[in-house]
Amino acid sequence: MNKIHEECVVLDHGTGGLLSGQLVSDVIVGTLGDVYVGLMEDSFVAKLDTVGFLAMTTDSFVITPQIFGNGDIGKVAVCGTVNDLAVSGATPKFLTLALVLEEGLPIRTLRQIIASVRDAALEANVKIVAGDTKVVKCGEVDKIFINTAGVGFVPDRYTHLRPRSIRDGDDIIVSSSLGNHSIHILSMREGLGFEQRVLSDCAPLNHMLDSLLARHAAAIRCMRDVTRGGLGTVLNELATEQSLLITLDEERLPIQIETRMASEMLGVNPIYLANEGCVCLFADPAYSADIVAELKKHTYGRQAAVVGRTRKATDGKVLMIDRDGDSTIVEHLQGMELPRLC
Amino acid sequence: MNKIHEECVVLDHGTGGLLSGQLVSDVIVGTLGDVYVGLMEDSFVAKLDTVGFLAMTTDSFVITPQIFGNGDIGKVAVCGTVNDLAVSGATPKFLTLALVLEEGLPIRTLRQIIASVRDAALEANVKIVAGDTKVVKCGEVDKIFINTAGVGFVPDRYTHLRPRSIRDGDDIIVSSSLGNHSIHILSMREGLGFEQRVLSDCAPLNHMLDSLLARHAAAIRCMRDVTRGGLGTVLNELATEQSLLITLDEERLPIQIETRMASEMLGVNPIYLANEGCVCLFADPAYSADIVAELKKHTYGRQAAVVGRTRKATDGKVLMIDRDGDSTIVEHLQGMELPRLC
Repeated sequence: MNKIHEECVVLDHGTGGLLSGQLVSDVIVGTLGDVYVGLMEDSFVAKLDTVGFLAMTTDSFVITPQIFGNGDIGKVAVCGTVNDLAVSGATPKFLTLALVLEEGLPIRTLRQIIASVRDAALEANVKIVAGDTKVVKCGEVDKIFINTAGVGFVPDRYTHLRPRSIRDGDDIIVSSSLGNHSIHILSMREGLGFEQRVLSDCAPLNHMLDSLLARHAAAIRCMRDVTRGGLGTVLNELATEQSLLITLDEERLPIQIETRMASEMLGVNPIYLANEGCVCLFADPAYSADIVAELKKHTYGRQAAVVGRTRKATDGKVLMIDRDGDSTIVEHLQGMELPRLC
Repeated sequence: MNKIHEECVVLDHGTGGLLSGQLVSDVIVGTLGDVYVGLMEDSFVAKLDTVGFLAMTTDSFVITPQIFGNGDIGKVAVCGTVNDLAVSGATPKFLTLALVLEEGLPIRTLRQIIASVRDAALEANVKIVAGDTKVVKCGEVDKIFINTAGVGFVPDRYTHLRPRSIRDGDDIIVSSSLGNHSIHILSMREGLGFEQRVLSDCAPLNHMLDSLLARHAAAIRCMRDVTRGGLGTVLNELATEQSLLITLDEERLPIQIETRMASEMLGVNPIYLANEGCVCLFADPAYSADIVAELKKHTYGRQAAVVGRTRKATDGKVLMIDRDGDSTIVEHLQGMELPRLC
């Protein structure tokens, strides 16, 4: 391999031949280490040691900047897919990793991103089982896009975790401060100076949700990952789909003060901002204090709070109640034009 | 939805809110119809009616032009992943579909591509179970990239289909003319005029391989999908990994005459060109004539032929034997710089 190939990604790294093989075996599989359990064949094949329910999901990640204050696109790509599985009650097990690289991407940047994939996969206890690497010309993609698809298995006792399980009078709980991922990324992009104090919340939530479900599965109706579009979007989708009147107590929403300040500067509402390590869950109100207490035991759940409740209704709607008891509608998100947060 | 949104993809189609929902439900899920069995939740969950072996694979597709003579990126995205599963002995079952769209992409183009996804999935009898749609600014991706990941199940009796099952003296069979996908795409890109006569071979091979395995699984050692890097790359990888001396009979390689002519004009060797509907398989020579006859019964296997054989060796190597019996080494591919064929 000559020097230029050591320094930057070139088109031949993606054409299937010798350089492709070297990039994959050295930079990707070499960096992933034991986290990669594939054989670089057409498919990964594993004996299923379970019968029951399979969960499957996919996400493409196009975040910019690719490397941010406390993470990078590699970490987001693992956490996003792990969390989609975990909120469905699945134990995440196998991830695929597909990269589209821009010619000229520094190899050291790629190594750093793959190291983050490895570290997040180690923390989440998932294996990378198959991959794909494409290279396109300079200007045909912005540096690197990553897709991860994931498979997990759902124990029978967790298969009730679905939107249709939500009942009249459920409490709504969120596990972390809202909007920090978006504000961190936007602050870096716009040079607002908040990125030191508002960190991305990007994290794999599966171990926290494992402990929570082990104790409280019967009291939890449904969980959702709060990402693009924020809590406002998750709740509007569920309100519409399940005919719910959802009320949120504005004062109880966990929002970091710097996130509020940055949101005001940017003219955005934190209710629509993305997290990458926040679960929203619906629970029997008799157990919601216990659930919040359990979440607070975990690093990623310290800001957990009951923030609202549900009523069965004819028309789905989300209302925000302020300190004076006045309500405003939280509309479906439109016109934010905030792309590439994940 | 106002007129511009009906005509072109805009950034808000990717930000998780109202327009994202409309794009997904109308254009994507609406076009997929019964092929989509997800619920637009964080993960798809299905009861496993099987114990045994799970196969999993992923591929990102960045082909240009996105719409070519007899197919498009949507068709390639389904066939590529279906074939990766099928050559591993799996019955392909569930696919995920993740799109990265460029702002400004005409909605009618997207509908056409999703219709191709649907048609290929119908033919292959796979379901789309989960998806993701991101939108990036004009110039940050070239029109549309698609990732498909796939899951299938491998019957116990097919789990021997692995490179390490290849033996000394196996016959090597290919199922179709080599390089037609590449030549079709390159001819369109370069305006060579061959694209009418050399069509892409892009096709889902799972039904053909199902029939073949039902009759001849015990005689087949291993199958590989011939894609990027062509037959030359598949064979070099296996030769190196399994310590095989592989000899190919030049005269027996099925290569269409126009593909040869175009390859000469382009200065490329068809042995390294990509197919999207060609399997290379290793088989007991006592059964290779029956296997070829079985493949020839299928539309996608009409050009099937025995093209070479294996010898166990200390150093892996691929040799091409010409009509005079002279041999040349088929080297590992390097320096072709032919990106974005799939």
